[in-house]
Amino acid sequence: MQRYFIKPILKTDAHFELDTVVSKHWLQVMRGVPGDQAEFVDGQENLYLGQLNEDHSVTVVKALETNVELPVDVTILSGLPKQDKAEWIVQKATEMGANTICFFGADWSVAKWQPNKLSKKLTRLQKIAQGAAEQAHRTHVPTVRYFETLKQAIAELEYDHLLVAYEEAAKQGEQAQLVKLLNRIKLGQRLIAVFGPEGGISPKEMQFLQEKQATVAGLGPRILRTETAPLYFLAAVSTMLELQ
Amino acid sequence: MQRYFIKPILKTDAHFELDTVVSKHWLQVMRGVPGDQAEFVDGQENLYLGQLNEDHSVTVVKALETNVELPVDVTILSGLPKQDKAEWIVQKATEMGANTICFFGADWSVAKWQPNKLSKKLTRLQKIAQGAAEQAHRTHVPTVRYFETLKQAIAELEYDHLLVAYEEAAKQGEQAQLVKLLNRIKLGQRLIAVFGPEGGISPKEMQFLQEKQATVAGLGPRILRTETAPLYFLAAVSTMLELQ
Repeated sequence: MQRYFIKPILKTDAHFELDTVVSKHWLQVMRGVPGDQAEFVDGQENLYLGQLNEDHSVTVVKALETNVELPVDVTILSGLPKQDKAEWIVQKATEMGANTICFFGADWSVAKWQPNKLSKKLTRLQKIAQGAAEQAHRTHVPTVRYFETLKQAIAELEYDHLLVAYEEAAKQGEQAQLVKLLNRIKLGQRLIAVFGPEGGISPKEMQFLQEKQATVAGLGPRILRTETAPLYFLAAVSTMLELQ
Repeated sequence: MQRYFIKPILKTDAHFELDTVVSKHWLQVMRGVPGDQAEFVDGQENLYLGQLNEDHSVTVVKALETNVELPVDVTILSGLPKQDKAEWIVQKATEMGANTICFFGADWSVAKWQPNKLSKKLTRLQKIAQGAAEQAHRTHVPTVRYFETLKQAIAELEYDHLLVAYEEAAKQGEQAQLVKLLNRIKLGQRLIAVFGPEGGISPKEMQFLQEKQATVAGLGPRILRTETAPLYFLAAVSTMLELQ
């Protein structure tokens, strides 16, 4: 069933008007007619079943039970990759359950985001996150943010655990660190996972992360592209915390 | 360091000529000069360090130790998706360690591959697999195959374990099946994982897989796109078998 995110806070039997975006998609793209039903995630991330009325308003039929969010709060913090890869990371990391998706201007980032284009780029990525969250049937839309440096990101983001995916760690056979962290993390805790851009994490950034007591973890013996590593990581989190 | 796949079987101190593809990439794209070194995976999937000679032949310096392949033999069997998604699945599933990547004409596949275009499409996908295997520093290039139906694929492919990723399984809370299978699979065994196309697995295909005693497994509570599910699966296999 179609799922939409809306701002108002709903309750059973409540009525509400569709905003223009949802209205256009449900009535025109999906050809919705009075009596059709859809799922609505309200402003408090609660899920309701809604039915379309003759006047194109919606009546809340009932609240729906759902539990589709990761049991821990994961922030993906990726060194800024090329534009299409950033879009791709946002879409896939949203499908895979990330709570927040951040990019930072890494020492070795090839791509640069000009300050005057920043808000436009973030708006586009936020739209992609919302679409992916609807498609994945999530109740939370990840917030997409940008930081000029790794230092700034770590200073502003709150977390209980900090991890960095490091290719060299894999080469040195440090394969158990990720699983060890996932075995000791507590439900609801906040975990930041740092990933390098195409060029990788610089020694300076690596030293900074180690000063912050980051867990240095390998993601298996194969070299993963910058846009693939966050997905491997999120799938590992889900496998360890949701599948067993 | 650059890595290339070549057909000949090598040994230390052996000399060999570069084929045109490798020669073009190493000498022209990478601007290789005599004395430069690269890694070569030979026809038996063994890894060697090679040094470029004045006459542009290569001398094998030494054999290199490597162990980057998944400890089990995974075949990704995906219902044929749209073309760009097929290319994407091949690239990412190769990065993530798949041994073989197959597509089948699913009951609900929107895309169709005309027999007369099949070999051209497979050649293109095979090239993508080789590029991804080089980039991921693998020693095995996955073979890409196509089957007209799921039944035909299961009849022709050999396997010890058969699994199907099924959205409904997730909804029914069948979250432990994948982990249970990965806990009982033995090193070196062959595992086929079936994924539906955009439209999903048809009831007829599902019934066939159940007759074949396929393990029906959910991949977490979120709905994953057809191109995302195989990556979640491969990351789960690596997490359970390579990281602990």
